[in-house]
Amino acid sequence: MEFDKIIMERYATKLFDKRRLPESKVDKLIEIIRYAPSSFNIQPWVVQIITDQDTKEKLSGASWNQPQITSCSHLLVFCADTNLLANIEELEKLMISKGDKQSEVKQAIDMMKNFEKTLNSDKKLAWAQRQTYLALGNALNGAKFLGFDSCPMEGFDPKEYSNILNLPDNIVPTALCPIGYAKDKPNPKLRFPKERVFRYH
Amino acid sequence: MEFDKIIMERYATKLFDKRRLPESKVDKLIEIIRYAPSSFNIQPWVVQIITDQDTKEKLSGASWNQPQITSCSHLLVFCADTNLLANIEELEKLMISKGDKQSEVKQAIDMMKNFEKTLNSDKKLAWAQRQTYLALGNALNGAKFLGFDSCPMEGFDPKEYSNILNLPDNIVPTALCPIGYAKDKPNPKLRFPKERVFRYH
Repeated sequence: MEFDKIIMERYATKLFDKRRLPESKVDKLIEIIRYAPSSFNIQPWVVQIITDQDTKEKLSGASWNQPQITSCSHLLVFCADTNLLANIEELEKLMISKGDKQSEVKQAIDMMKNFEKTLNSDKKLAWAQRQTYLALGNALNGAKFLGFDSCPMEGFDPKEYSNILNLPDNIVPTALCPIGYAKDKPNPKLRFPKERVFRYH
Repeated sequence: MEFDKIIMERYATKLFDKRRLPESKVDKLIEIIRYAPSSFNIQPWVVQIITDQDTKEKLSGASWNQPQITSCSHLLVFCADTNLLANIEELEKLMISKGDKQSEVKQAIDMMKNFEKTLNSDKKLAWAQRQTYLALGNALNGAKFLGFDSCPMEGFDPKEYSNILNLPDNIVPTALCPIGYAKDKPNPKLRFPKERVFRYH
């Protein structure tokens, strides 16, 4: 399916049919998510993948019992990683291991560390969450490309999710993306007119 | 080009060749951006499109003189719109004009208004900016799909951009996306391994 068609056919699926996705398709989606862009390539995110039905039931209680959580095949929990410094250091190792020039690596990493220092903890979280939405976007479009459905969701209790999934403080649940095969049908897409959204200079 | 190939071929272009994109291609990109998803479908974003070279020169000074700004064809400035209530009210009109049931519209709009009330001004901005990154992601992938290049950029002074573009307070420049034809070549893509990013439960 071409990208412009993916954009129009993707929709926020409210109910899945409980069929399990083949792991080969999920692995393809993982690659599409993994290669999402992020500022400085810091990749400040971790994605929890839940297939265990008992865990989904527990999480459903922390998501206003919305039926996507228990009827999906895999529940992806997109988390922002606020430990930017750890990510920067990991990225440094990766750049060196791939053979980047030491002086260029140092310059890039110093720039990232200086940027990181300018952010307080609230700004770190907001920044990491923004980046995470680029990865989320790839998941939503990627699912439709691979022939299945998805639903972006913010209606859940991040603290409860943290507790149930036993996440460290720096890994902050930010958006859900249940994936699977839809049991519902899309409504027509409704968007603001071009004139409201785009301004020419 | 298939979506998985778009993901791998898209890259942050550092220099464009100054050729002007045909408006028909830009219009296709606009549709791909316009149909991006957002929470509650509130679409809390406005995109400024700059083609005037004098304005680009001025903006370049507010973006550390990075060469993408003056060498691109069109500079897209993705802005978060923090006036969520105005967007919700506009969405209400749109839903009614498209023939949605009055009772269902009321229920949906009430939910959005209750959500909006829970956010202070910092949280409104952070939330709107996150959504804006979904639109930005569509732009980046959409450009490659349509046969041209792009660069996501956060390195600029939002206040200076506001002044130069004469934007109201609720329209907050959040990310840049210059588009055009690349004059550089991509480096190999570097990402954290799957094991670091994805955790199974």
